[in-house]
Amino acid sequence: MWLLFEGVETLEESMQAAVLSKPYHINIERRKIPKPKEDEILINVISVGVCGSDVHYYEYGRIGNRMIKKPLVQGHECAGIIKAIGNKVTTLKVGDRVVIEPGIPCRKCSYCKNGNYHLCPEVRFLSSPPVDGALSEYITHPADFAFKIPKNISFDIASLVEPTSVGIHAAEVTSIRPGNSVFIMGMGPVGLTMVLVAKAFGAKNIIVSDVEPLRLEMAERMGASMLLDALDNNIQEKVDKYNEEIDVVIDTSGKAQALNLAVKVLKAGGKIGSIGFPSTDEISISLLRMIQKEITLYPIYRYKNTFEKGLFILSKQLELAEQLITHHFPLDEVHSAFEKARTDKSKCIKVMVHPNK
Amino acid sequence: MWLLFEGVETLEESMQAAVLSKPYHINIERRKIPKPKEDEILINVISVGVCGSDVHYYEYGRIGNRMIKKPLVQGHECAGIIKAIGNKVTTLKVGDRVVIEPGIPCRKCSYCKNGNYHLCPEVRFLSSPPVDGALSEYITHPADFAFKIPKNISFDIASLVEPTSVGIHAAEVTSIRPGNSVFIMGMGPVGLTMVLVAKAFGAKNIIVSDVEPLRLEMAERMGASMLLDALDNNIQEKVDKYNEEIDVVIDTSGKAQALNLAVKVLKAGGKIGSIGFPSTDEISISLLRMIQKEITLYPIYRYKNTFEKGLFILSKQLELAEQLITHHFPLDEVHSAFEKARTDKSKCIKVMVHPNK
Amino acid sequence: MWLLFEGVETLEESMQAAVLSKPYHINIERRKIPKPKEDEILINVISVGVCGSDVHYYEYGRIGNRMIKKPLVQGHECAGIIKAIGNKVTTLKVGDRVVIEPGIPCRKCSYCKNGNYHLCPEVRFLSSPPVDGALSEYITHPADFAFKIPKNISFDIASLVEPTSVGIHAAEVTSIRPGNSVFIMGMGPVGLTMVLVAKAFGAKNIIVSDVEPLRLEMAERMGASMLLDALDNNIQEKVDKYNEEIDVVIDTSGKAQALNLAVKVLKAGGKIGSIGFPSTDEISISLLRMIQKEITLYPIYRYKNTFEKGLFILSKQLELAEQLITHHFPLDEVHSAFEKARTDKSKCIKVMVHPNK
Amino acid sequence: MWLLFEGVETLEESMQAAVLSKPYHINIERRKIPKPKEDEILINVISVGVCGSDVHYYEYGRIGNRMIKKPLVQGHECAGIIKAIGNKVTTLKVGDRVVIEPGIPCRKCSYCKNGNYHLCPEVRFLSSPPVDGALSEYITHPADFAFKIPKNISFDIASLVEPTSVGIHAAEVTSIRPGNSVFIMGMGPVGLTMVLVAKAFGAKNIIVSDVEPLRLEMAERMGASMLLDALDNNIQEKVDKYNEEIDVVIDTSGKAQALNLAVKVLKAGGKIGSIGFPSTDEISISLLRMIQKEITLYPIYRYKNTFEKGLFILSKQLELAEQLITHHFPLDEVHSAFEKARTDKSKCIKVMVHPNK
Repeated sequence: MWLLFEGVETLEESMQAAVLSKPYHINIERRKIPKPKEDEILINVISVGVCGSDVHYYEYGRIGNRMIKKPLVQGHECAGIIKAIGNKVTTLKVGDRVVIEPGIPCRKCSYCKNGNYHLCPEVRFLSSPPVDGALSEYITHPADFAFKIPKNISFDIASLVEPTSVGIHAAEVTSIRPGNSVFIMGMGPVGLTMVLVAKAFGAKNIIVSDVEPLRLEMAERMGASMLLDALDNNIQEKVDKYNEEIDVVIDTSGKAQALNLAVKVLKAGGKIGSIGFPSTDEISISLLRMIQKEITLYPIYRYKNTFEKGLFILSKQLELAEQLITHHFPLDEVHSAFEKARTDKSKCIKVMVHPNK
Repeated sequence: MWLLFEGVETLEESMQAAVLSKPYHINIERRKIPKPKEDEILINVISVGVCGSDVHYYEYGRIGNRMIKKPLVQGHECAGIIKAIGNKVTTLKVGDRVVIEPGIPCRKCSYCKNGNYHLCPEVRFLSSPPVDGALSEYITHPADFAFKIPKNISFDIASLVEPTSVGIHAAEVTSIRPGNSVFIMGMGPVGLTMVLVAKAFGAKNIIVSDVEPLRLEMAERMGASMLLDALDNNIQEKVDKYNEEIDVVIDTSGKAQALNLAVKVLKAGGKIGSIGFPSTDEISISLLRMIQKEITLYPIYRYKNTFEKGLFILSKQLELAEQLITHHFPLDEVHSAFEKARTDKSKCIKVMVHPNK
Repeated sequence: MWLLFEGVETLEESMQAAVLSKPYHINIERRKIPKPKEDEILINVISVGVCGSDVHYYEYGRIGNRMIKKPLVQGHECAGIIKAIGNKVTTLKVGDRVVIEPGIPCRKCSYCKNGNYHLCPEVRFLSSPPVDGALSEYITHPADFAFKIPKNISFDIASLVEPTSVGIHAAEVTSIRPGNSVFIMGMGPVGLTMVLVAKAFGAKNIIVSDVEPLRLEMAERMGASMLLDALDNNIQEKVDKYNEEIDVVIDTSGKAQALNLAVKVLKAGGKIGSIGFPSTDEISISLLRMIQKEITLYPIYRYKNTFEKGLFILSKQLELAEQLITHHFPLDEVHSAFEKARTDKSKCIKVMVHPNK
Repeated sequence: MWLLFEGVETLEESMQAAVLSKPYHINIERRKIPKPKEDEILINVISVGVCGSDVHYYEYGRIGNRMIKKPLVQGHECAGIIKAIGNKVTTLKVGDRVVIEPGIPCRKCSYCKNGNYHLCPEVRFLSSPPVDGALSEYITHPADFAFKIPKNISFDIASLVEPTSVGIHAAEVTSIRPGNSVFIMGMGPVGLTMVLVAKAFGAKNIIVSDVEPLRLEMAERMGASMLLDALDNNIQEKVDKYNEEIDVVIDTSGKAQALNLAVKVLKAGGKIGSIGFPSTDEISISLLRMIQKEITLYPIYRYKNTFEKGLFILSKQLELAEQLITHHFPLDEVHSAFEKARTDKSKCIKVMVHPNK
């Protein structure tokens, strides 16, 4: 059967996949290698970044009302090499290096038609239960949601395009413009790549905050112009002294404290891009002040049409982006990868798993 | 001296003004009639609508951190007749009937220059302490913030343009478009004129909620297509059954409960225009769900460039707008006017004071 | 085989279709009734409006570089009844009355993904060669490009949604807003439905021009507030006297003279929506004046996401819309229908063909 | 009298100014030093760039219907030092180094209020007849249209902010975004600074064209990624081979040939920013193709709210910007300055005049 695929000569029939069966339990299982449909590609997965949401499912088995009900393959920050293509695929070929956009929409609803496919109610998003993700040797994926990686970009960097995309979407929704001053709260991987994004969008000043010294130091390397300890009680004072009007705050922390600080430090008419999931359903915000300053709150959900831009933005800052990838594991050490990401925030930024090593 | 004004022959030198000295104390005082500067007009005030914020200052002497520190003339929903003009005024003449836009910005800051003059930090807004308002026989005002009233519109309706303007600004910020379904929460004067505005912006369905039967009945007359008791526990169910995706919610209530209902009933990608001041600094909102549905929260502060549009929108719905004006008082009964507005929400929508009756 | 379709019991196997073989030659042929694919519906066609582009192909066999190279079924303004559905169709059922959106994009390219599917280079548009159109007893169509017709709307009116869509797209691109003054040039069916659209978008004043008295009279009925003879040399003078700043001009004529008049009468910062195809490749425009007044030229190509809005806009103005449909023909008189549309512009607005009469 | 100005101790009463009396005739005259009004500053002019429009008035005495009717001081690209301030000026002080924005609007019309003050019909623009410009030792100017120059920026570079502003406005109107490919036609000072602007807005590829080898070489230094001879017949072919979709074309040439090339090379949905004044009132454009590709034409008139951004953008590319200033003249050699700018396009980019040297 496999011989029917263009360019595939010998291919084993089964592969390894990392399966989360219950909190803290990830096992390597053998599964059948999937076969690409006519508009799909088969990818040999090279690099998969571990995302905070992956770790959250690993710990709790759920995010809000989204629950893992049957064993799940995780991973959605994924780059690899095409090994086979469906017979209607014309834009990619076997051997192409690609990064994948993990959410596949229905293409037919009003969201898909008006350019907001990320809000499609039928979207299937890799590693979001019950859809299996990329922590396996092979995956299939629609060709039009895979993007060729330029030669100068590694698989690791390419897989960073996914978290970078959240920041690009936030920058577009909040209209970061050349000359703006941007305050980015929370310097996890999304916050740190957001620094690179803010620069690409022309930000003049980039203020950042976090509690981890490593992350602040990393933010400085990325290009942040002012570093703040998120637990400092005098942040507002310090920002005020900085003497630059803040146009946009991007919050990746999901904390009420952060949002309310945002409302205080922003100029009138300023914008908040809210990326970070709060740990409780509701949080308290100072709506009265938001009205008096007409500050808009833009919650940011994933991204759309960002992957080409992400490859471009990272290609201009490769040496910086590389520093964000701090740890590497083969697939059979995926449990250690998750533990590293979960427990070692003082030393670890982005953990990369390599299913084919 | 007064004879220097164009068109002014005989004019007494003093006038009556209603002055709020402390909560619940409004006295009629005699004051000197102001003299218009070169780019100002002198207006004989005919109609002044009593706004919820006027009543709030009347009760509490403050709104948030804005406090009445010295006796204040209230009133900012104001229409009248021009009695004199400054020597550089060319666009208006003595005898013109005008409605005034009450906030005068500095015209020089970055907000003024980029079209957001309503956020100008130097704005002087009639009746917002310490700037005196319109509850007096005469006021002066910059000519370019006064708008000629078309013949078919009464002074009373013209003064309604001010609260209507808040809704117009909300409709513009949230981009209400032909065919949209809009849910307006709170049927005070701003909510009720918002129904008229939503129709003018092409709304297909207009759902409204309030606790007062009179206000819901009035909303129906204005054109609401679905009436909901704000205390009903099954609102979401009823809206879901209505089977129309809600594109925009406009909240005039300032209540957390309303905003969280908004997040539930809105379609993904929906928008909330938040007009109503909350009674506490902070309120609790379901940010997690806002992120998952990418619902944007647009706090609305006053308005900008809305008065011509407001006159147009009301001119098309004069008979409806007239029903919103339920009570009239002369200036020396201004205390009764405020008490009526404060205490009789089951029978009273908009109270009008007439300083020259 | 037909029995496999849900809800289809007896259905003849062949149907009539009107086929244009060369200029001025349309013949009725018998063709096999198409079978809907899994995401398609089979429609019994009730009403097909004759469009200016249909007539142009009928006369010249081409529009610009788009040429009829093999016999073509024309017609793309189409409404009918669903007779069968593919097995993956869930949003529509047999018996539903629908109007179809005639352009089917690839759903995968960057245009489709960013909401500009009307610019998809792979779009298949009914009656645009070599894709057959709707002038036949049956057509199949993707279910998501068919829209249920509300009960109060006839098939004839529903088919008007297609030309109305061009105007809706123009109104959205040029941002017609409540209170705007709009000048619509050319009162063919697109211009006349544009009057209805402009009203729905809140236009305050609607100026129109044409050379045919019938069309100007019809425009007045639709709601135009000022009628101008397009050959009048004093149009600019008359518009200036009208004393309303023109915010937007919509040109459906494609004439250089019209565009240059637009540049003259528009306010600074005004917008031109250019719908009408010019008869020559290039036309002469006053770019110098466009720069000095910063007037933007928005060429308008078809539409996107307009059909639900179109049904809503026409549903509010049914009696007016009905007046635009001036002639009716059965399918076997399609040749007369085209001749009527081609030759009798003084009496004819929209010609409707009924394939199942 | 002069002693009344804050910080002014000794100041001569007259100054030199360069006055254009008729084509090719500029004389140095002595004029009285102007006195700043209460919201104005008095500037000792250090650097004035010679603009193409200055040269055009110098040659022809007019641009389109704008004519020099009485002797005119030219120059509007101007930076200098504050020597005195009016008594209401609080944001600047004597000794501040400033660049001025040359167009002063009325601050009261609808354009001024909605953020489009550059379209204000009452705007007074330095050196646009009959308003005198900056080619004199001193000028007065409203304080809010003067911007403090950061320490690291020279007066010469600061005066470049004015032509750079046109490009910034074009980039904002056409929404140049990170990752876009931009084609800039015409490499005069506006085109060359546009290269710097496009980079600041995140352009991925910058294609440029001109006929002068020096200008193309300079464009390459500025960061252009592809250089094209504007007279080359195979430009379209070369751009097509470049294999990047063109998102935006900025034309500074004003030539029909350039605009029509733009229509050909742009992707569907692309945008043209048209900065360059055409030499004739009308030019011929391919509207048919613009409709089929839905390509929007944005004529660009001057700029608004760009000076802070311009200082920021140039501050990031100082060494590049400096290369654009090729010639310097003292005020009494202003005639040579204009002749150099007029006749030596193969060696000269930006000519700078220094009124106080």
